[in-house]
Amino acid sequence: MNCAVVGATGAVGRELLGLLESRAFPVAMLRCFASPRSIGRKVPFAGRVIDVQALHEHAFDGCDFVFFDASDAVSKEFVPFAVRSGAWVIDNSSVYRLDPQVPLIVPDVNAAMWNNSRILAGPNCTTVQLVVFLAACAKVAPLKRVVVASYQSTSGAGLLAMDELRAGTVDFLESKPECRSFFPEPIAFNCIPQIGSFDAEGWTSEETKVMMETRKILGHEDLGLVATAVRVPTLHCHAQSVFLEYSHDFTMEQVHTTLADAPGIQLHATYACSRGQYAATGGDDVHVGRLRRDRSVPFGLAAWVVSDNLRRGAALNALHIAEMVCRGIAPS
Amino acid sequence: MNCAVVGATGAVGRELLGLLESRAFPVAMLRCFASPRSIGRKVPFAGRVIDVQALHEHAFDGCDFVFFDASDAVSKEFVPFAVRSGAWVIDNSSVYRLDPQVPLIVPDVNAAMWNNSRILAGPNCTTVQLVVFLAACAKVAPLKRVVVASYQSTSGAGLLAMDELRAGTVDFLESKPECRSFFPEPIAFNCIPQIGSFDAEGWTSEETKVMMETRKILGHEDLGLVATAVRVPTLHCHAQSVFLEYSHDFTMEQVHTTLADAPGIQLHATYACSRGQYAATGGDDVHVGRLRRDRSVPFGLAAWVVSDNLRRGAALNALHIAEMVCRGIAPS
Repeated sequence: MNCAVVGATGAVGRELLGLLESRAFPVAMLRCFASPRSIGRKVPFAGRVIDVQALHEHAFDGCDFVFFDASDAVSKEFVPFAVRSGAWVIDNSSVYRLDPQVPLIVPDVNAAMWNNSRILAGPNCTTVQLVVFLAACAKVAPLKRVVVASYQSTSGAGLLAMDELRAGTVDFLESKPECRSFFPEPIAFNCIPQIGSFDAEGWTSEETKVMMETRKILGHEDLGLVATAVRVPTLHCHAQSVFLEYSHDFTMEQVHTTLADAPGIQLHATYACSRGQYAATGGDDVHVGRLRRDRSVPFGLAAWVVSDNLRRGAALNALHIAEMVCRGIAPS
Repeated sequence: MNCAVVGATGAVGRELLGLLESRAFPVAMLRCFASPRSIGRKVPFAGRVIDVQALHEHAFDGCDFVFFDASDAVSKEFVPFAVRSGAWVIDNSSVYRLDPQVPLIVPDVNAAMWNNSRILAGPNCTTVQLVVFLAACAKVAPLKRVVVASYQSTSGAGLLAMDELRAGTVDFLESKPECRSFFPEPIAFNCIPQIGSFDAEGWTSEETKVMMETRKILGHEDLGLVATAVRVPTLHCHAQSVFLEYSHDFTMEQVHTTLADAPGIQLHATYACSRGQYAATGGDDVHVGRLRRDRSVPFGLAAWVVSDNLRRGAALNALHIAEMVCRGIAPS
C-alpha cells in the first residue's frame, strides 16, 4: 500500500510511524508531511530515512491511505485533496467526527458502522479508551448514564506541551517564574480544569467531544453522559474515573468475567493497587481497575480506566481503521 | 487560653501555629508536642521560640484546648489523657469521627451538631471542602446524589511525602530510578488511584471516609454518595470534580446567587478559566468553578471545587472549632 502521514513529526505521527513498522502494515511507499517548520527534517522508517515534505494539492496522488494527525485547519484544507486522489482517508482531527456522512470508528467497538465512506474519522483520544471500556460493560446490561472525570496528560496537547511541563517543573523547583503558552495556567504541579475553549453553557470543547463522540460510536444517542476534562501534570496516558449506571441489575462477577474476556482490555484485580499512568505507557491496552459496586444508585458501577492516549487513543486506532479497510477491500 | 498542639512539626501542625497567631486566638500558654524524632526542635510562635516536647500522661494538665494533628495511633493513645485533664479536645485524626457520641464539625456547616462533648472531631481534609460546597448547594434544593472524583495533592500525606514528590520529580527528569515509600507507585508525573488501604469491596479508606463523614456532617444519612480518590503529582490543595443531582428542579441563577453569597466560598465565573490548584494555595476559601447544568439527569449540576487541604481542610477547620467553643463557653 502507498501511504502518506500528515503530521509525521508530531506526537501522534511519530507513534504511527512506529506502529506501521512494528505491526507490519504492508507499506510499499511512504510519504511524510508536516508543518512548514519541519520541512527538510528526516524521519526514520523501517531502516530507511524519509524526507519530510510540504503539503500541496497533489501531495497524495497515487496514495492508497492517507493518515491525518495534524490540526483541524490542516484536515479542513487537505482532506478534500486526499479524497480526490482516490485514497482512503483516516482523519484524527475533529473536523469530520460528527458529520453524519462520515463513520466515526473504533474498530474494536463499531467496525460495522463503516459504510464504505472514503473518509473515516478517528475519535478524540479520551473517547477511544472510554468507548472500549463502555462497549465491554454494555455486554453485561444496557447502559443508562455515564459520569466521567478525566486526568489527561500533557501529551494530548503535543510534544511542545510536554516540553513545557518538563521546563516548567524545573523552573518551579528552582523558584523561577514559569513560561507558559499551551495551558491557561502554569501546568507544573497543578491540575487545570480546562481543555479547549468554553461554550455558552460553560462546557469545554474537550468535554463536548467526549460526550458527542461516545454517543455516536456506541450508537446510543440518548445515553446520559457527563464529563469534566482536567489536565494533570503528567507526560503520558489519560486516566478516567468512570461512574456508570446500568438500566437493570447485574453482578460484579458478570462485570469481571466480561471485562477479563474483552479484547484490548487489561483488567486489574480490585484488591491490588490499581495502576497509575505509568502502567499503560507505550502499551496497546486499555487498563481497567478499581471496579466497585456503586450503591449510591440502584445499578451502579465505579471504575478507573487508563490508556496511552497517543498510542491506543490515536495512532493505534488509526492503524486499526486502516487494517479494517484492508480486510474490507481485499478480494475474498 | 492554655493550648497544646500535638503534631506541631507536621504539615497541619505548622499551619495551625501560623493560624493561631494570625487569627489572634487568645493563646496565654502554648505547648508543642511531636513524634520522638522531633523532640528538642524549636518552633516559632508569636515572636517566641517553643521547645517541642515528648508526649506523656500529664502533658495536657492545665490546658484549655488540645489540638491533635498527628496519627490515628497518637490520638488513640493520648486523647483520653487530654480529656482527663479537662481540656477541650479538637481531634483531626479519624479515630473519633464516626463515633456517635462525638460531634464531627465543620462550623460553617453544622455548628449546631455540637453537643457539649469534650471531644470534637474534624473531618478528613477532602471532606471539609466538599461539605462546605454541598451545604451551600443544598440551600437551593434538597440533594439526592453526589458523585466525586478527587485530585489530591501529596501534602495530604505529609511533609515527607511532598519531599518524595520533589525528589522523585528530579530523579525522573534525570532518568534515575525513583525512591518511594509513601505511595504505592512512583508519584512523579503519575496519578495513583489509591489513597489508603482497600476494603473487601474494593473501596479505599479515603473514599469511605469522604462518603461516611459527609453524610454525618450534612445529617443526611441516606444521601447517595460515591467517590474515587486519586493522588496527583501536585504539592498543595485538593481538587474535586463534583456531579450532583437535586431531588427537584432548580435554576443556574439560583445556584450562582446562593454560592456567591455563601461564606467561605469563592465563586469563579463559568466562562473564565476556572482555577487550578495554585489559586487556592495558602488561602482560607473553598474555590468553586466550572458550574454547569448537567443534562444527563433531570436535575443535575457539575462543578469543580478546590481548596488548600492543609489550611482550609484541616488547620483552619480545627481553629474554627476552637473559636466556636470559645463563643459557646464565654459568659453571655
